[in-house]
Formats: sequence, structure tokens, C-alpha cells
Amino acid sequence: MQNPARVDYTLYLVTDRGILNGRDLFEAVEAAIKGGITLLQLREKEASSREFYELAVRMKMLADRHRIPLIINDRLDIALAVDADGLHVGQEDLPVEIARRLLGPGKILGCSVSNEEEALQAERAGADYLGAGNVYPTGSKEVATPPIGVEGLRRIKDTVSIPVVGIGGIGLHNIEAVKETGVDGISVISAILGSRDIERAAWELRNAWRRQ
Amino acid sequence: MQNPARVDYTLYLVTDRGILNGRDLFEAVEAAIKGGITLLQLREKEASSREFYELAVRMKMLADRHRIPLIINDRLDIALAVDADGLHVGQEDLPVEIARRLLGPGKILGCSVSNEEEALQAERAGADYLGAGNVYPTGSKEVATPPIGVEGLRRIKDTVSIPVVGIGGIGLHNIEAVKETGVDGISVISAILGSRDIERAAWELRNAWRRQ
Repeated sequence: MQNPARVDYTLYLVTDRGILNGRDLFEAVEAAIKGGITLLQLREKEASSREFYELAVRMKMLADRHRIPLIINDRLDIALAVDADGLHVGQEDLPVEIARRLLGPGKILGCSVSNEEEALQAERAGADYLGAGNVYPTGSKEVATPPIGVEGLRRIKDTVSIPVVGIGGIGLHNIEAVKETGVDGISVISAILGSRDIERAAWELRNAWRRQ
Repeated sequence: MQNPARVDYTLYLVTDRGILNGRDLFEAVEAAIKGGITLLQLREKEASSREFYELAVRMKMLADRHRIPLIINDRLDIALAVDADGLHVGQEDLPVEIARRLLGPGKILGCSVSNEEEALQAERAGADYLGAGNVYPTGSKEVATPPIGVEGLRRIKDTVSIPVVGIGGIGLHNIEAVKETGVDGISVISAILGSRDIERAAWELRNAWRRQ
């Protein structure tokens, strides 16, 4: 569906059912889409393969209906099974070159990095974009390494020529500093899904990014 | 490497690092191969994707060296990444028809079942063989449903035309009763990997199956 070179990385939502306090995942994501997210990653670290697959099938329908690309976290099998628009791998997931080979050239492949060496390696191995962080301290389990700060984020952005999105602890209060690094967007979990009004939270972040 | 129709299901070892008490997984599997296992399944329920992938790469080399087919448990992505000989899915894993489509026709696809309905469904969806059980009570985490007994195993075998292996609590003391059901082999974890002399344990099981 998507040309990997034409993806809008401005506001990239990563899901985390744990932060929803019982609210429905699909309603939450639909609210975030209405608020203006441009890209969506389904992330399930505890689900069985069957449950992940069934969530991904439903999420793909939702994402397609709103023409938002759906990226699957970690699990290439789930990405292939639901014909997702792409896959995001971390340093503990399948190597980028293996994922690229199995995914084919037409899908979006992202990789989490926390320094320039990992960034260069991922770019050379065939990643379409990088998720760089964590930029700030964060409560999400997604990121456990020490914060790289906006300086670290800028160094990564300057090292590669593929798009870079900052991730980790980014919200309205620090989005300006992140944008000044020159990155292509921000990836958030709690700044949207941890908010009481998810649509508004997404809308405010999208607007704040555009304003600058 | 393998023609799915020509697989020898006699003695099918499923790995479990937890039962090895610190012994090396690859040494344990090599001993089991020397003892006479005919099929090998790498099962990793706790590993990260990267760790699973790296274990699978090494296991594939070991299995190829001994011309034993390697089946990957649950994770189609890992099976594709290492070009394993097949995939085994449970009822909580990817649906058989999805796995079949993504795996292609040349690979071995197995499915865990515990009754005739699941057996028929898996056969129709494209499974090459069934792992039916658990036959007896077992301490392994692999199987949590109530034992189906040799009667349940026989009913499953009589329901389908693809090969069926019994799994769950099978050892030297009850292998005769299992064989009498007409199944094509047994799948074991602890009867081999929980044994002090792994090669001998495999050899005794293989011999007991042949003798009858």
C-alpha cells in the first residue's frame, strides 16, 4: 500500500495496551488517528502469536480504513500474515538484513537505535527509517537504555540519510527541542495513549510539530 | 531439504532449555541425535527474537550436519529466517492455513491437537502431521490440557490420514501402549532431555519403538 520513501513520519504512535487502563485498544487508536497521527505501530510483547495475529488483523482493517500505514513491532511473521505495511525491529529482534530479505523491498522497515554505530549499521542493512532514543527518561518498557538527549538524537540524524524519528519521553513540553534537531518526526506511546483525551493529545502534538 | 511426505516421525525430540539444568543445549541435542532421534523441534518460549534466531541458526547447522529435519516451534519468522525444514504451531499460535500459505508447500507443517475436531481442522487447513496430546499427565509446560489417554490418541489417529505423533508424558514404561494405537511416532521432551544419559535415553526409546 505504501511507498516506503513517501511515509509521513511526523507523528508515529506505538501501541501499549498496558497504558490504556482497560480502555479499548481500537477505540484508542481510532481517536489518535482522528487526532492526526501519521503512522501506527502495533506492539505486543506479552500476547500469544494467535492473539497478536488476531489483533493485527483488526488493526490492519482500521488502519486501512483511515489510510494510515501499519507497522508491526518485532514479529515479521505477524507482519507477513496480515500484509502489514512494515516491520519495526529493535536490537533484540531479528537482524535488519534478515528482516529486509524476508519482508521484500516494498515494505517499510524500521529499526530502534541508540547511537551512531547502530544507526549506520541499520541503514546499511536496509532500514527505511530509524527510531532513535530514548531521547528523554521514560516510564515505558519500550526503552531501557540511558537517555541520549537531543544531542544524541541530532548526532544520529546527522549520521544517516534515512528518516529518523525521536522516541522516548517526548511530549508537548519538549517537542520544540526535538524538532530543532532536524529529525523527521516523533514516536510516542504515553503522550497519546496515556492521555485522558487521546484525540486531543494527538491533535496538539501534531499541531505543535507543524507550528514550528 | 526434506520432502514432508517422507519424514520419519518415530522419535521426535522437542527442546526445553529449562529441563537441562545448565547443560549445553547443543551438546544435549547432539547426544540425542546420536541416540537415534529422527526429528527435532526447537522450542523457545522466553527468548527474544534475536536470541531465538541465533539459537536457530546454530541448531540448523547441527541438524543439517546429521541430516535431521529441524522444525521451529510457533515462530514462522524464525523458521523462514533460518530456512528450517518446518514449523510446528499450537492452538495459540498462527492459524494453520496462514502458516501454510507463508511457509510454502515444500516445508513440514505440524500442529498440536487434543481432540478429533482440532485434528480434522488442522488436516484440512494444510498440516503435514499432528502432535496429539497430552497423552499422559506431564510436568512440561508444553501441555496444559487434561490427558487424552491412549484412547483419545487412537481416536485422533483414526480420524485423519496424515501422520500423528503422541506427545505428553511418554517414556519407556508406556511406549508400548502408545505404539498400539497405530500412531506414527512419539514426541518427547523430558524422557530424553531430563535424562542423565541423553544418548542412551534416546537409543532406548528408539529401540523400544522398533522392537514392537
